[in-house]
Amino acid sequence: METFSYSKSQEFFSRAARVIPGGIYGHYSPAPLIPATHYPFYTARAEGARFWDVDGNEFIDYMCAFGPMIQGYQNSVVDHAAREQLKSGNLTTGASAVMVELAEYLTGLVSFADWAYFAKNGADVTNYATMIARDATGRKKIVMIQSGYHGAAPWMQVPGHHGLIEEDYYHIIRINWNDIEALEHAISENPNEIAGFIATPYHVPVFRDNEMPADGYWQKVEAICRQEGIVLIVDDIRHGFRLDMSGSNEYFGFKPDLLCLGKALANGYPISALLGTDALKNMAARVFYTGSFFFEAVPMAACLVNLRGLEEIQGPQIMQTQGKKLTDAMVDIARGYGFTLKVTGVPSMPYVRITDDESMMLHQDWCAECTRRGAYFTPHHNWFLSTAHTVQDIDQTLEIVDEAFQAVKKKWEDEKKFPFEKP
Amino acid sequence: METFSYSKSQEFFSRAARVIPGGIYGHYSPAPLIPATHYPFYTARAEGARFWDVDGNEFIDYMCAFGPMIQGYQNSVVDHAAREQLKSGNLTTGASAVMVELAEYLTGLVSFADWAYFAKNGADVTNYATMIARDATGRKKIVMIQSGYHGAAPWMQVPGHHGLIEEDYYHIIRINWNDIEALEHAISENPNEIAGFIATPYHVPVFRDNEMPADGYWQKVEAICRQEGIVLIVDDIRHGFRLDMSGSNEYFGFKPDLLCLGKALANGYPISALLGTDALKNMAARVFYTGSFFFEAVPMAACLVNLRGLEEIQGPQIMQTQGKKLTDAMVDIARGYGFTLKVTGVPSMPYVRITDDESMMLHQDWCAECTRRGAYFTPHHNWFLSTAHTVQDIDQTLEIVDEAFQAVKKKWEDEKKFPFEKP
Repeated sequence: METFSYSKSQEFFSRAARVIPGGIYGHYSPAPLIPATHYPFYTARAEGARFWDVDGNEFIDYMCAFGPMIQGYQNSVVDHAAREQLKSGNLTTGASAVMVELAEYLTGLVSFADWAYFAKNGADVTNYATMIARDATGRKKIVMIQSGYHGAAPWMQVPGHHGLIEEDYYHIIRINWNDIEALEHAISENPNEIAGFIATPYHVPVFRDNEMPADGYWQKVEAICRQEGIVLIVDDIRHGFRLDMSGSNEYFGFKPDLLCLGKALANGYPISALLGTDALKNMAARVFYTGSFFFEAVPMAACLVNLRGLEEIQGPQIMQTQGKKLTDAMVDIARGYGFTLKVTGVPSMPYVRITDDESMMLHQDWCAECTRRGAYFTPHHNWFLSTAHTVQDIDQTLEIVDEAFQAVKKKWEDEKKFPFEKP
Repeated sequence: METFSYSKSQEFFSRAARVIPGGIYGHYSPAPLIPATHYPFYTARAEGARFWDVDGNEFIDYMCAFGPMIQGYQNSVVDHAAREQLKSGNLTTGASAVMVELAEYLTGLVSFADWAYFAKNGADVTNYATMIARDATGRKKIVMIQSGYHGAAPWMQVPGHHGLIEEDYYHIIRINWNDIEALEHAISENPNEIAGFIATPYHVPVFRDNEMPADGYWQKVEAICRQEGIVLIVDDIRHGFRLDMSGSNEYFGFKPDLLCLGKALANGYPISALLGTDALKNMAARVFYTGSFFFEAVPMAACLVNLRGLEEIQGPQIMQTQGKKLTDAMVDIARGYGFTLKVTGVPSMPYVRITDDESMMLHQDWCAECTRRGAYFTPHHNWFLSTAHTVQDIDQTLEIVDEAFQAVKKKWEDEKKFPFEKP
């Protein structure tokens, strides 16, 4: 198979680098795509589970815009709802009726939730959640997980990043995932000082295997938080609607006080939401938090239709099934070429890694070879399935996976780096 | 004239209050609209400079969605560009070509700017700007203006608000607007510790008259910042494109290091931008800041067409002219009824207040009476003009203004509160 070239992407990137810091920044930055020259940077068109880059290359997309796309690009039902709402009005002076309808729908869908609040970024609602926790408890400290990601506000970032000062994270306590003792230790070291505990439903560090909760982990966290009066915040922004329609907490059998949603809420339209319990409603109302575009009606209309559609077809189950079919077959193909592919997380958002080579160069090579053949795989971030990924998409992907393994095996053999020496 | 009633708005609000903290929150909260029962809360439809609430009442809109609407709701040119971009893709895996085009356009439009960065909320870029300032200077402190508003992130809020802790604003120094001595004092009290100075082009406190910069104020601030190595950040989110297409700093004849834009960038589509100088480009690239929806192409396409259109028709001048026609005539009408109307700020975003009654109740009554007749005026926030406000809109508004003065005069006479006693 002819592999792709990216001359127009490179050309746009050169232009961009002159007028945009880093050319492309943040999580879209090409830096973690190694070798970056084997990846497209600019999308020209997207439809269903596929996108076409500015060079005309066609990709089956396993990043789904880093999560937001969940029912396919150009989804006719969601986009129709958005266009209809736009005909009446999007951002106007005054709220929209659809905002009320969406809050009613979400509090029905998510069983623990008594209220909903809408914003734009995921970080808007993780930020707001910790402010509510502090207001409700009169305490300052927030416990979070090492390598946990909740957005790019200073307190959420890892100490040492550029632009931070120590006061940003002075009251942040980072503990290891799945470590109940560490949580108990943090509490005993800071008696009556911990306002909130925030974590994702399961742990999704970058550059590392994803980690599910240990048996009973969440139930223990829940019990400790209740006992200590700590506000339990689940950041379901990345996982939301790929595990359970009623909140990923339901998938693991527990109830938080606050649930942060974002990304996939509206199939790509910009909206985030905080859901909470009645006990925190007055505090939520008196903590001031707002933004110029928080009342946009189009993403709310899109969200309502998107979630109703996902509920009707049991979206999470479809994505789990397709993801399992894909990753199980990939593991088998890898084994046939003498490689070990490890899959962690849930199949609807798998983290995939070739474990044979600790430098990760083999894994990077293989991801790039898949991408250059039309299956877009990033090497160090979990992937995302959507309900738009068809059986044909999966089958075509597996053909690409096979070819890519063949290509990297040959390359590594030629370079005398494979077969690996037995330790 | 029959005045409006708002039974459906009230009905929706009762439903909303059950499932949304405060029913409607943040700057859209009905709380500052006094008497709130005389205002509509929910918009059904918007077009041009007008919106229709859920009760079917029609309003000439002087809030413009708190600024974002600048060329009229349902603007055919902007919405066409948005719809065309949506046909190709909005948020996808990969950046969009239009992002590069927009950055090139903005750095051409705003003379001091060498680069552009895009986000969603205004607070995203004011936050990011201060992080860049800290990274560039290795200093911690940020000087800002008393009652200055730069978004709802904790450090931007007034100490004492719910959900804040003192560490949030430990390195924030608030000084009075137009007070050069206070800036010099802050510097001498904190030698080599001030990373940045942030302010709006002119001061727009709520509940108070707006204040223009004193002669030479910005030039002195600029000189001091250059001399002291302090990053000069202008928050042009609210003012942007209503004073000068090239940045409101040009209107006052100075150049910042960083310029924050938002609100009116894309006529209501959600996008904010930070513009900066080459000297800060590397720091901007290495400060990590991102969000799930920052790479949406639809708002970028809408922004490009919106700003080109505003440039072509000299939008700021149109809004200044219409605003002046409106407010000059309003002052005259007020005088005719024995009232004093004070107008501060620029005519394209005037702050209007009846000064005769210090309790502000007369002013609130009058704003409500205007609104109940179809000219939507909030009492304690600056208003916004748009290029869609026609001569007919202004004339119709002035008729409403006249009737409203007649009504409040009668009411206050009946209640024996007018004429006012001479002090």
